[in-house]
Amino acid sequence: MTRYQHLANLLAERIEQGLYRQGEKLPSVRALSQEHGVSISTVQQAYQTLENLQLITPQPRSGYFIAPRKAQPPVPAMSRPAQRPVDITHWDQVLTLLDARSDKSITAFGGGAPDVSQPSLKPLWREMSRVVQHNTAEVLSYDEISGRRELREQIARLMLDSETLATADDIIITNGCHAALSIALLAVCEPGDIVAVESPSYYGTMQLLRGFGIKAIEIPTDPQTGISIEALEMALEQWPIKGVILVPNCNNPLGFIMPDARKRQVLSLAQRYDIAIFEDDIYGELANDYPRPRTIKSWDIDGRVLLCSSFTKTVAPGLRVGWMVPGRYYDRVLHMKYAASATNVPATQMAVAAFVREGHYHRHVRRMRQIYQSNMETYTCWIRQYFPCGICVTRPQGGYMLWVELPEIVDMVCVAKQLCELKIQVAPGSLFSAAGKYRNCLRINCALPPNEKHREVMEKLGEAIRVAME
Amino acid sequence: MTRYQHLANLLAERIEQGLYRQGEKLPSVRALSQEHGVSISTVQQAYQTLENLQLITPQPRSGYFIAPRKAQPPVPAMSRPAQRPVDITHWDQVLTLLDARSDKSITAFGGGAPDVSQPSLKPLWREMSRVVQHNTAEVLSYDEISGRRELREQIARLMLDSETLATADDIIITNGCHAALSIALLAVCEPGDIVAVESPSYYGTMQLLRGFGIKAIEIPTDPQTGISIEALEMALEQWPIKGVILVPNCNNPLGFIMPDARKRQVLSLAQRYDIAIFEDDIYGELANDYPRPRTIKSWDIDGRVLLCSSFTKTVAPGLRVGWMVPGRYYDRVLHMKYAASATNVPATQMAVAAFVREGHYHRHVRRMRQIYQSNMETYTCWIRQYFPCGICVTRPQGGYMLWVELPEIVDMVCVAKQLCELKIQVAPGSLFSAAGKYRNCLRINCALPPNEKHREVMEKLGEAIRVAME
Repeated sequence: MTRYQHLANLLAERIEQGLYRQGEKLPSVRALSQEHGVSISTVQQAYQTLENLQLITPQPRSGYFIAPRKAQPPVPAMSRPAQRPVDITHWDQVLTLLDARSDKSITAFGGGAPDVSQPSLKPLWREMSRVVQHNTAEVLSYDEISGRRELREQIARLMLDSETLATADDIIITNGCHAALSIALLAVCEPGDIVAVESPSYYGTMQLLRGFGIKAIEIPTDPQTGISIEALEMALEQWPIKGVILVPNCNNPLGFIMPDARKRQVLSLAQRYDIAIFEDDIYGELANDYPRPRTIKSWDIDGRVLLCSSFTKTVAPGLRVGWMVPGRYYDRVLHMKYAASATNVPATQMAVAAFVREGHYHRHVRRMRQIYQSNMETYTCWIRQYFPCGICVTRPQGGYMLWVELPEIVDMVCVAKQLCELKIQVAPGSLFSAAGKYRNCLRINCALPPNEKHREVMEKLGEAIRVAME
Repeated sequence: MTRYQHLANLLAERIEQGLYRQGEKLPSVRALSQEHGVSISTVQQAYQTLENLQLITPQPRSGYFIAPRKAQPPVPAMSRPAQRPVDITHWDQVLTLLDARSDKSITAFGGGAPDVSQPSLKPLWREMSRVVQHNTAEVLSYDEISGRRELREQIARLMLDSETLATADDIIITNGCHAALSIALLAVCEPGDIVAVESPSYYGTMQLLRGFGIKAIEIPTDPQTGISIEALEMALEQWPIKGVILVPNCNNPLGFIMPDARKRQVLSLAQRYDIAIFEDDIYGELANDYPRPRTIKSWDIDGRVLLCSSFTKTVAPGLRVGWMVPGRYYDRVLHMKYAASATNVPATQMAVAAFVREGHYHRHVRRMRQIYQSNMETYTCWIRQYFPCGICVTRPQGGYMLWVELPEIVDMVCVAKQLCELKIQVAPGSLFSAAGKYRNCLRINCALPPNEKHREVMEKLGEAIRVAME
């Protein structure tokens, strides 16, 4: 991030927090330059940025003033999906989304990639070079099925932050969190089985269900507290459900962190109805607040929670290093891992183990948490400014995704198609519903650095939505 | 390989080929040293090696003579499995085999690892370092679902050697050949389906079937010409078989190459009964003779062959770079790849693409073909020498596996357990049968360099088998 962006974000935050009142005069360019030890032009650029965001207004020969405040858009209400088991559709749209990854000319607001351009990733680099140069035999040979022990030991230590107790022997390394969920589902379910999911729910996981012929039942989910325990219980009463897939921490796409009490409620419900919980913690380390939230797994006494996670969002997707703590399903999961993919690449496992061991991981994650939080604030400002009225936006407690609910009239599937021609890619809400609901919603990836280019794209996006409403 | 080993192998080959007659005197140490431009001591060591193999006998003050020839052990007969669909067992034994990989003190004759210690692999090294240092963004980011295009292009070129015509767009990169087979099976079959397999058949593939709840029907297979077309046809008449898994080139474990005529026969049978062929070509590039044999896929006009392969045996297992040409099943396979593992590690794909592009791959494979062929000859000598009479041994046309059939009385599952205590690991034949047949057989991995240590282990192995026969 450049200095002026940093300063602009800082000021935007203060304005958001109400530290300045509407109409209040801001410090002069010179005063701010001295206060922050930056150049006059840096302050000028920062003020220009805030002006673009309509947070401040210039008055000739008087300086900058706090602009009249646009109301904070409300958070979407509890979702109301059709509560019956359905087959998942929409693979074609997901494929289009994924194909865009390799086209560098596309602005991929629809994808899930983290920001891998930060200097705090440099040590990972060094570790990878070192691994390749000094461990020829290990790098070229077959890995253990459960993955490199040195990495499993580091993961066991990391998981203490979420009060999740597991030893290296309880952990199985996988080809990312996606493969962990895939193996978990294959180990527990059969084609024709029913699994409960949050609604909306991450499209990647739902495509797993489609692939394996498993039906999904969408459960109403609150954008601030997570899946409705009451609705889940009703569904469990009514259908032979095998398990529930949950992203309780920094939910994708809604951004909530389930309160601890609700995590325990859902676990006791699972115990009562003897179902498995597939807990996806991939964004859990990116919670805004420290210490990071607990996992449902951390209360799991009878091993029914299959915890899945990875370094994809916290470090880099290209590592393909994920893991699973499968509890009572360990033996079956290990066999299914062998069946599904046998072993993983040793080199990236060794590099990430060193990255964690040497303390680089914690430094990097600390940094990324702040960056993503600040990014989401900036994107929220832009949405407020460029999008039409009558919308709802989530207030994520972590991760880097925003979920926007537009008026019912807007069909984001159509808008997304038009945006393709402008080389802008967004994820329409319907991808996040087994039954294709939420066509008036979209998810925005705020890991894309909030620079001038991305501001312009957001402006175009808002414009396209305005047009769709006419 | 050291000079004396090279010379010993050369002489052993000549003796095997009958270029010297029994009782004939070999050239003097001095003459041989001059002929081959090596030192006196090198020739002496070579002769000592041949003496240990009982191929030659020294006579005091006269020199070395060709020893009385032990008969070449016969090749095993056509297998006769129970021809009905069964569930696969033996996962525990496979797991034990796989666990031994990480224990360096074990001599792993039972595993499938190639020799990764040859200097012709050094350029791969350099390519990996280069990739890590110069392609930060690509290495850290998500790959395309179908894999890196640059690699798919190189693979398309490589496949021309087996007359297999495919473009980069027909190829899907996978996490090794194992994952390719796994995805292929998931895409075509459902739990409860029946798949035909060669008998004996690679245990890894059979564990896939077990994992996915697919039944296997074992088809009689000839150690020199492959699966019995007649028996396969009878099974197709009798059972609702979805597909057949074949390793037609350098078969694992039998080492045969199916004659072209039989490859075409099996294909037309598949067409007639409308079933899929899962063709595993992982050892195909390691055929003794050049040019390498054709794939069944090369005659496939209606896209029913799912060709699976990888760089695991030809280059290194730690790369986890395999691929598939799924023909008419492309769309379903791509979805299943996304469901099973999403994307792969870009770094190793980029390194192996460069390794192929720069010509290192062909040089390396040429070298390995020779090494493995010579290794198998040496191991065959040792088996003849140290194993009891009344055994059959395959004469592989490529790859690096030997299959030994012992008298019925020997239970290799028991022998294998005893050998564990001596830190020797072998693969009992029963792992290669869905129904647990072939307990009197074993597979030996000849990629382990035939040095003094391994000769001693073979001697111990022969001794253990002798004891089991008593």
